[in-house]
Amino acid sequence: MTTIDTDVITTATTQSQSPTPCELLGVAAEETRRLVLPAMRAAFAELDPQVALVCAYHEGWVDLDGNLCDGDSGKLLRPTLALATAKAVGGTAADAVPVGVSVEAVHAFSLLHDDIMDRDETRRHRATAWKAFGVPMAILAGDAMLGLSMSVLLDAPSDRAMRATKRITHDTQRLIAGQRADLTFEVRDDVTLADYTAMAIGKTGALISASCALGAELAGADAATVDMFAWCGDRLGLAFQIVDDLLGIWGDDRTTGKPVLNDLRARKKSYPVLCALNGSGPATRRLREIYLGSGQLPESDVAEAAHLIEEAGGRERARRAVANGALEVTEAFDRLGLPKREHDILLAIVGAMTDRVR
Amino acid sequence: MTTIDTDVITTATTQSQSPTPCELLGVAAEETRRLVLPAMRAAFAELDPQVALVCAYHEGWVDLDGNLCDGDSGKLLRPTLALATAKAVGGTAADAVPVGVSVEAVHAFSLLHDDIMDRDETRRHRATAWKAFGVPMAILAGDAMLGLSMSVLLDAPSDRAMRATKRITHDTQRLIAGQRADLTFEVRDDVTLADYTAMAIGKTGALISASCALGAELAGADAATVDMFAWCGDRLGLAFQIVDDLLGIWGDDRTTGKPVLNDLRARKKSYPVLCALNGSGPATRRLREIYLGSGQLPESDVAEAAHLIEEAGGRERARRAVANGALEVTEAFDRLGLPKREHDILLAIVGAMTDRVR
Repeated sequence: MTTIDTDVITTATTQSQSPTPCELLGVAAEETRRLVLPAMRAAFAELDPQVALVCAYHEGWVDLDGNLCDGDSGKLLRPTLALATAKAVGGTAADAVPVGVSVEAVHAFSLLHDDIMDRDETRRHRATAWKAFGVPMAILAGDAMLGLSMSVLLDAPSDRAMRATKRITHDTQRLIAGQRADLTFEVRDDVTLADYTAMAIGKTGALISASCALGAELAGADAATVDMFAWCGDRLGLAFQIVDDLLGIWGDDRTTGKPVLNDLRARKKSYPVLCALNGSGPATRRLREIYLGSGQLPESDVAEAAHLIEEAGGRERARRAVANGALEVTEAFDRLGLPKREHDILLAIVGAMTDRVR
Repeated sequence: MTTIDTDVITTATTQSQSPTPCELLGVAAEETRRLVLPAMRAAFAELDPQVALVCAYHEGWVDLDGNLCDGDSGKLLRPTLALATAKAVGGTAADAVPVGVSVEAVHAFSLLHDDIMDRDETRRHRATAWKAFGVPMAILAGDAMLGLSMSVLLDAPSDRAMRATKRITHDTQRLIAGQRADLTFEVRDDVTLADYTAMAIGKTGALISASCALGAELAGADAATVDMFAWCGDRLGLAFQIVDDLLGIWGDDRTTGKPVLNDLRARKKSYPVLCALNGSGPATRRLREIYLGSGQLPESDVAEAAHLIEEAGGRERARRAVANGALEVTEAFDRLGLPKREHDILLAIVGAMTDRVR
């Protein structure tokens, strides 16, 4: 009896002490900040100082004059994923620090250039880099980040540094192809959900894929595990992009940091929009009338378009696609047989990336 | 006597058969086209097709619709240098083909992005890529070229591929720093000749340095020789940039392929301008009055500025700087004790890059 009692008490204690996903995420994010940010700062110090200033501003570290500020410095989701996968395969967070710097640099590169392409003027509640420093400096800052993403991996203290760099260059080309597809969607009226999936896996999935795969790679995982993480990253990225699409229509710009409904103004063929256009009811027919075409969507049509997309089932179908994506990634992680705590951290990250629309 | 006669005849025959610099250059350029262009096409085939189309248009291979054309496809100077240095250190041209593709890709990346930054609308007698395909596609095309410049070297069949890729990433950051300096010169009135030298060695020298050094690197040269070629590339690049400055004022846009005098309209602090501003006579004083300031130089002042720069000795000093640069590079090549034919090819390239203003 005494033995049984002790067991019960131990189980109860473990359960009450078992950290919540939110707590796990907080600890993981804190570790990322502690390890990756100093490495990023050291890498930035090697760049042209004025280019580095634009990059530091983009990251939210400094204000326009280069003074340190406590602005919203981004969530470092991709580096956090890299550190988590490294630990999940038996390595240390330190193994994945060069990956963390690299994927955050690719992320910065893509945002710096995308904001120019999309003429977006606000990011994280501040002027975008091109708006603050001009298009030429923002182009150069993105270029410098792309170069840095390669050199930091080449310098990684690992005999897998070269293979890792090959993967980041490959995934960067996938990202560029996805961004190109996204651009052409704005002027195409025949975009299918298959087109969208390929675009989103490139534009958003490729870099999340690199984050997951390269964390495992530099921690010494076998090739099959690395490829499995890469696949998970693609699927997670697809789900994450659909979340972004949903927030772009029904999000709150106080939390997203960028103006809501701009995607509709640009007639973006986002996931909920495509689902709605794919229907056959009156809401779909009306949506086709006002949404297909070229040029900026008239301001008077924006709210109606959002309403029609929901009416035609686009919002619900997008939410279901996100939930399905989260599920398939979770199941894949389950099959890898990872240690419990590291497994729970990965699930917490997946949850944070896909839960915002529940 | 008979013997002497034979010697005389042999010498005379050798001399009459010894190819001219122009002939050597033609043979070298033809080899570059034969070896590097197919490798570039193969690398482009791995990219997003629409991004690759913009890159192929930029290279002069295709017209706006993707149809093959026999446009001016650029001089492939940097790949030619890479192949020449590989052969000069005892390797084969084939050793340097990945370098040729890489440096041409970096060159394409920098021009694609520079043309956006400078708002230049014409290159090689055609619309620039951003003018033809829009800014977003030109940004993406440059990004793809930058990524490709790394991956093609990573895939080089050489145990020095990694070291080579490290050098190209480093030199690309030097190029970006130089381009940034050039941008800020337009709005600065305190640019010195030392500032200019640092800028030009970055903006133009870094990539020519990489071309020379990496040709030697992949052909198996020792570290001291590779570094010597890197140094030569820096100095050759500086001279080449001053040539470009001279052609930007006194060139013929029918041969340069881009509008003359645009540098003056943008108040560029080019080498001849800085030399002229550094004087003390009446031409310098008048030049300071009209040239220093901000915004586009009024059209009515452009011709006078060109005249004043020459009057104040800027043109002559720039020409001398080019000649000095060619001389120091030639002397460095002489000291390396290279085989005669390969040495002559390198000198022919140096001549072609620095002779256009004599």
